[in-house]
Amino acid sequence: MNYPGGIKKQTKQDINYAKRGQSLEADLNLTNSYYQHQGLALIYKKPTPIQVINVTSNQQKSPLITKACFKTPSTTDYNGLYRGRYLDFEAKETRNKQSFPLSNIHEHQLKHLNAVIKHGGLSFIIIRWCYYQETYLLESKTLFKYIKQSKKQSLPYTFFKTNGYLIKEQYQPRLDYLKIIDLFIKEEKK
Amino acid sequence: MNYPGGIKKQTKQDINYAKRGQSLEADLNLTNSYYQHQGLALIYKKPTPIQVINVTSNQQKSPLITKACFKTPSTTDYNGLYRGRYLDFEAKETRNKQSFPLSNIHEHQLKHLNAVIKHGGLSFIIIRWCYYQETYLLESKTLFKYIKQSKKQSLPYTFFKTNGYLIKEQYQPRLDYLKIIDLFIKEEKK
Repeated sequence: MNYPGGIKKQTKQDINYAKRGQSLEADLNLTNSYYQHQGLALIYKKPTPIQVINVTSNQQKSPLITKACFKTPSTTDYNGLYRGRYLDFEAKETRNKQSFPLSNIHEHQLKHLNAVIKHGGLSFIIIRWCYYQETYLLESKTLFKYIKQSKKQSLPYTFFKTNGYLIKEQYQPRLDYLKIIDLFIKEEKK
Repeated sequence: MNYPGGIKKQTKQDINYAKRGQSLEADLNLTNSYYQHQGLALIYKKPTPIQVINVTSNQQKSPLITKACFKTPSTTDYNGLYRGRYLDFEAKETRNKQSFPLSNIHEHQLKHLNAVIKHGGLSFIIIRWCYYQETYLLESKTLFKYIKQSKKQSLPYTFFKTNGYLIKEQYQPRLDYLKIIDLFIKEEKK
């Protein structure tokens, strides 16, 4: 069972994967923190939306939430600012070998990514293929073109290899995806 | 006692104010929702950051959080995209008549607003003066100039009247602050 915002019930599979490396979310948080401290960009993961139902208050201590539930996020998980540009993206991991099911991204999140393009921002998805230990960045416009033309609800791994951008994993920053954004900005200026 | 994210313990003063109108947060949410539905902008309030400690899982139902606490937000409450520009702001209400204490905004939030300017975004604060029933937008650069020059830790009401922009309250959108942003964008293009 997957909880919203990347909180997962740990399974045997997760533990095995944990040995191989960190989660995509952890890698992106490290990367964004590096970008921020180096004065390169301001990109943050939004907090998981939670509906607070009950709070106990104690004058001496901070309030404690005793009852709450997860809400469906209304936008993507990440957004921010880089070289004067608005960035917006969703990040997901898949253990599949053949294809990434689009059902892993909420419909209103896809709508949001599309709206970002219309308003002049840069929007994309970052997908980690755990089996191949590869992480790809795919522009939203490429994604929507594919959905429109193929009428399919899943993206083949080969589609990422051909149309996406492989993000190099390294020590620091862990996933240097802004190098790919530089290419997009350069392309726009042509 | 004030909880983070605008959740407040209701006092007699709050109840009286509630009769006069909605909270600034509610007005901004309505405004942003209007902007979004009209296809004008994509601006959202970030969820309140919450540290989840305990979750009970029931296969039939959604997971329920049974223990959690509020975290200090790492950025401002609002950000988004308008006419290809990145916007970022913090919004606060004050019941004071004379001045707005800067201690109402976290230090790292002020640092964040400053960083947004450096990275080419538009950053500002929106302050509602409940006593005067007036809401002002103040550019971050004007705010930081004042702090630097005056060395003061509070902003007088008169400073907002002179250096801020009064946001007109109306039926729809409730607080049309993008009209002021239009002025800034126009000014930049000169």
